[in-house]
Amino acid sequence: MTQEAQILTFIIVVSIISLGYAGWLASWVLKKDMGTPKMQEISNAIKEGAVAFLNRQYKTIISLALLTAVIIFGIYYGVQNNASLAWKTGIAFIFGSFSSALAGYVGMHIAIRSNVRTAAASTRSLDEALKVSLRGGAVSGVTIVAMSLLGISILFLLYGGLSNPEHVPYMLVGYGFGASFVALFAQLGGGIYTKAADVGADLVGKVEAGIPEDDPRNPAVIADLVGDNVGDCAGRGADLFESTAAENIGAMILGIALYQHFGLKGILFPLLARAFGLIAAMFGILIVKTKEDGEPMQALNKGYYLTSILAAVGFWVATDLLLNNNMWFFYAGLVGIVTSILFVFITQYYTEYRYRPVKEIAESAKTGPATVIITGFAVALENTVLPAIVIGIALIMSYYFGLKGSAIEFANNPAGGAITGGGFFGTAIATMGMLSTSAYVLAMDTFGPITDNAGGIIEMSDQPEAIRKKTDKLDAVGNTTKALTKGYAVGSAALAAFLLFNAYLDDVGELMMKAKNLIGQPMSNPLVQKIYETAHTINLADVHVFVAGLLGAMLVFIFASLAIAAVGKAAYSVISDVRAQFKENPGIMKGTSKPDYGRTVDIVTKTALKKMVLPGILPILSPIIIGLIFREFGFGAQAVAGFIMVATIVGVLFAIVLNNGGGAWDNAKKYVETGALGGKGSDAHKAAVVGDTVGDPFKDTAGPSLHVLIKLLATVTLVMAPLFL
Amino acid sequence: MTQEAQILTFIIVVSIISLGYAGWLASWVLKKDMGTPKMQEISNAIKEGAVAFLNRQYKTIISLALLTAVIIFGIYYGVQNNASLAWKTGIAFIFGSFSSALAGYVGMHIAIRSNVRTAAASTRSLDEALKVSLRGGAVSGVTIVAMSLLGISILFLLYGGLSNPEHVPYMLVGYGFGASFVALFAQLGGGIYTKAADVGADLVGKVEAGIPEDDPRNPAVIADLVGDNVGDCAGRGADLFESTAAENIGAMILGIALYQHFGLKGILFPLLARAFGLIAAMFGILIVKTKEDGEPMQALNKGYYLTSILAAVGFWVATDLLLNNNMWFFYAGLVGIVTSILFVFITQYYTEYRYRPVKEIAESAKTGPATVIITGFAVALENTVLPAIVIGIALIMSYYFGLKGSAIEFANNPAGGAITGGGFFGTAIATMGMLSTSAYVLAMDTFGPITDNAGGIIEMSDQPEAIRKKTDKLDAVGNTTKALTKGYAVGSAALAAFLLFNAYLDDVGELMMKAKNLIGQPMSNPLVQKIYETAHTINLADVHVFVAGLLGAMLVFIFASLAIAAVGKAAYSVISDVRAQFKENPGIMKGTSKPDYGRTVDIVTKTALKKMVLPGILPILSPIIIGLIFREFGFGAQAVAGFIMVATIVGVLFAIVLNNGGGAWDNAKKYVETGALGGKGSDAHKAAVVGDTVGDPFKDTAGPSLHVLIKLLATVTLVMAPLFL
Repeated sequence: MTQEAQILTFIIVVSIISLGYAGWLASWVLKKDMGTPKMQEISNAIKEGAVAFLNRQYKTIISLALLTAVIIFGIYYGVQNNASLAWKTGIAFIFGSFSSALAGYVGMHIAIRSNVRTAAASTRSLDEALKVSLRGGAVSGVTIVAMSLLGISILFLLYGGLSNPEHVPYMLVGYGFGASFVALFAQLGGGIYTKAADVGADLVGKVEAGIPEDDPRNPAVIADLVGDNVGDCAGRGADLFESTAAENIGAMILGIALYQHFGLKGILFPLLARAFGLIAAMFGILIVKTKEDGEPMQALNKGYYLTSILAAVGFWVATDLLLNNNMWFFYAGLVGIVTSILFVFITQYYTEYRYRPVKEIAESAKTGPATVIITGFAVALENTVLPAIVIGIALIMSYYFGLKGSAIEFANNPAGGAITGGGFFGTAIATMGMLSTSAYVLAMDTFGPITDNAGGIIEMSDQPEAIRKKTDKLDAVGNTTKALTKGYAVGSAALAAFLLFNAYLDDVGELMMKAKNLIGQPMSNPLVQKIYETAHTINLADVHVFVAGLLGAMLVFIFASLAIAAVGKAAYSVISDVRAQFKENPGIMKGTSKPDYGRTVDIVTKTALKKMVLPGILPILSPIIIGLIFREFGFGAQAVAGFIMVATIVGVLFAIVLNNGGGAWDNAKKYVETGALGGKGSDAHKAAVVGDTVGDPFKDTAGPSLHVLIKLLATVTLVMAPLFL
Repeated sequence: MTQEAQILTFIIVVSIISLGYAGWLASWVLKKDMGTPKMQEISNAIKEGAVAFLNRQYKTIISLALLTAVIIFGIYYGVQNNASLAWKTGIAFIFGSFSSALAGYVGMHIAIRSNVRTAAASTRSLDEALKVSLRGGAVSGVTIVAMSLLGISILFLLYGGLSNPEHVPYMLVGYGFGASFVALFAQLGGGIYTKAADVGADLVGKVEAGIPEDDPRNPAVIADLVGDNVGDCAGRGADLFESTAAENIGAMILGIALYQHFGLKGILFPLLARAFGLIAAMFGILIVKTKEDGEPMQALNKGYYLTSILAAVGFWVATDLLLNNNMWFFYAGLVGIVTSILFVFITQYYTEYRYRPVKEIAESAKTGPATVIITGFAVALENTVLPAIVIGIALIMSYYFGLKGSAIEFANNPAGGAITGGGFFGTAIATMGMLSTSAYVLAMDTFGPITDNAGGIIEMSDQPEAIRKKTDKLDAVGNTTKALTKGYAVGSAALAAFLLFNAYLDDVGELMMKAKNLIGQPMSNPLVQKIYETAHTINLADVHVFVAGLLGAMLVFIFASLAIAAVGKAAYSVISDVRAQFKENPGIMKGTSKPDYGRTVDIVTKTALKKMVLPGILPILSPIIIGLIFREFGFGAQAVAGFIMVATIVGVLFAIVLNNGGGAWDNAKKYVETGALGGKGSDAHKAAVVGDTVGDPFKDTAGPSLHVLIKLLATVTLVMAPLFL
């Protein structure tokens, strides 16, 4: 067994161990008691609704995915006339879709069982409640990352990666596209569902009927709790599954540029770094604990910092083992890890009410809802400054570290030739660094809906005030972690996208070389050099590229528009149903008879799934249409690149506007609810509630869906590249 | 006198005649009677406030402009070591700033005198009121376009353009930058003022005190009426002054590419096309008239269509005279004219309540302010689709028409050499086509604040219902024309910016040639060819350009954030003052004593001017900083190009979101006020008012300021280009 084969085996073993670890966490959580019958009743209703939604959603997604698989096969078979590649890409696509869906399913399966156990644990101790909810969330986090790693490793092995490493990574792009495909629909459908239920329940309950949040008399209350699971948990899970999958494949493609120096090792590096990241997260999750009067956020932060440190160590080991211990590459990885920590800080600053931005929004509530929206929107736009600067510095630093590292390799081994794509490999390593803590971050993220649900269960089962305070505390922490994860997701999406479209340009170059029968020629060949340069030049001053870029920016806006409008429409269906239920059955408001929760769940499920199709198909079709139109002018591949690059830039920043803007409005309301500016029930509070409601579809539907859009654009173009030439 | 000198003389004569025509219009308007003493009293208060604001604003702008002139001189003297160019560019900058400011001043001088005359005329006939308001607005429109043309023609002549036409256009860039400089501050300061007064007056009057709009008891009511003049009239005037100036200069620079074929004529073409456009507008303005029960919008449209047709004829004549009657160039101009008409239609569809989008927003008012904002924002984002497609098609069509036209010239005269920049010249001609109706469009725009003011004067001077209905009708038309002008301004900004950064790339190429002593060498020289290609390649796949692009997109968002936040803060100062006045003097609300209008005007003036400085300086400094930082990496000029190109793409689309979104919210409220959905005073109306207020800073501060930002970025980089190499 070669050393490379040993490493690949090690990676596969780590993935399997991680899945075992997730299984162990799951059984640990499931053994916990399920509280009072009342609690179980509520939890069962949530479970039922969530499973029903996911089953129906997956049915829609599967039929769309199969259709897409056939199209992919047709393109590779028809355009490329390559049956073997057509089969491999098609199967990789199906496998990627399936893995992404399965990972989301498993995660949610445990999350909807962890909520009631967290509620029950909170009647005993805060520490136990924290552990149950975090570990319940970690099942999702670890499973997702491990499955993505396992899937890619197995495909790489099966497709002959050990013997033909320079070409196999291109065969895996279908896997990344499959993952993106499912992720987009999961995030969109879940995001529309969760906010339609939330907004609908709030408007009709709090505003019209005057009953508090999570009041059992509100027929939409279960739909709201279901939404937390299908949106935040299944949606974000699929999002980060595809981040890790697409990024791994993209990094492997960029690793090919260093093949003359590192051989197979450079291509395996991303997988090994990810495996070490998984190990780091497993430790980080286990050390989280709190005292009864402790601050759960601090406990979670401790785990996060440990994970980051261990991931950094793992990175160093991977660099030592696979990249000739070239420290510049390690530094590039550190850039990524630091970037992820900075994103967490920036997100906190802009979304927590301890700081200026949220306080400003809350202050503006004194003059009514209009000024809340105006001030909040100004703050949301301001939000883009620091992330843009951090991403910019991270890209440039890691690029130059990559160049430095490559120069050293060249100096040590001039026979291997100068490394043309070394800078891009540096940015790829930074992305790996940023994503190395993803399993832990995902655990923190799924912790959010679990504690939110637990709070709802405690509220609806009439638990004493002291217990309620405990779950409220956890719920507040969950809100923070959800905001942080979105910051992390969008930051990593930005880096991953840059990596992915460089992979796309490499792919275009490879296709151009194939067309000229130059495959296998070294970079020193002037013809090869010329092709590389042409493929890697996306001239924005060219009218075709510029217009494509304009359309790319437009795509982001229309996509966000469709997502936000979908929430509005689906929320309206919730409101209509709740009004009808109140009218049909006056006993509901008196508390003498129970509302029909299932009916509301059913209605919002149908509307959300119907409304996810158009925004879902748009980003898949649009780069293909752009590519085909501009191919007529001889600029297909370049126009598509311009299209996705500008879409990425705008998408990243606009997602930050939507995510953090929504988060800030949410917390401005919470700030008022702490008693500031008149407290609950005051006019300022009513104005702040308007801001919160407006922010809902921003932060939980359109924003997170934009992360997926960015990566999906990159993977769909990677797969469809043969069409554009 | 050569034919070229004759043409230049003709252009100058047309400009002077146009100024005379504007003077005649002004005397025609000023001879009209000024109505009752009560009307005059109100009008005088508006006049006083507007003049006070403009005087103070210009003081601030002049000191900033002088500072900038010194910096420009220093850069050209120090970096380029070229005293003559330093003087010429510095003086051109000052001349441009001065002309822009003067044009804005003259326009507003007449506008604030036309309002009361329109009010008085409306007591007699609708036709007379329409004519007074349109001709009052036309003084502004014609003066602005004529001054911009005259300024450039004179500078071109003085700097020796007739003998050295290949280099003089580069010396004029300072003029364009000066115009942009003043335009940005005028639009920002005026935009902040107008909306702070409007939002403040509305919130404290309608919402808190429960008194109607334009009620004389509201101390902010005069400030609100002043705002219409300083924002819409002076602001947009400066904006379109700079559009026409910058576009003329940019087109002249691109015309240099055709010098071997057309000689001086290709460089004079933009000026002649503009002169014919002026003539067309003068006729268009004169034919506008209406019956007593007529539809004023139809009358205005008739004038617009006549202007468009005459402008198209003028274009054909100019092509025949100067461009060898090459019809492809004429077609490119037609593309621009058609684009401007399409933009008018699209804007109407998205902002008038006859159509789906505004109706949808109004419908959503039934479930409260939150859904009004959500639906309105979704509609605002959807707005970007058609404009992006229209701009894209216009750019590509005119580019290919330019290529075709150039190919014919080359075929007819192979000795002149192939025309490298022919496609870009095509897009420049389309921009000229779009801007050829600008004097008429500007007249329609300034018509808006005049009729708005007239309505306010009628309201405050207690005129009978029948008269009120007449001015309400005109005011409604004014709202439409204001929205249309914004659509037109942003569309032309998009085309102009594309032209301008191609001029920038030409400039960079020219500087690179100078550095290598290649000036005067033909394009057939391979070294020249290479430099041209390098200068015209802005590789978005390069990490430096990509990061600069990311920062460019961010600039748009932070700029909009600062503009919107400024309105919020200045509005707060209005609210505080009005509250204080009500408290200090209880007689105001009883109607027994008059509020101190001047005090409110004074406070909002101070705040608006203070708040305009930061967002104003940001777009001037940021490209310079980007250029200097990336020069360290050897990518200064390219990074700046990436920065402004992505900023342009995002800026155009985001301006459309803000303009049309705000316009749609405004009209959704107006739709409810027609009696739909419960009409005035209903809950739906209250919700719609929130949307209207949110839209105010979007559509009248941030959106229009973004148009200027786009062009300012292009002109500042044109001037600062020597710094980046």
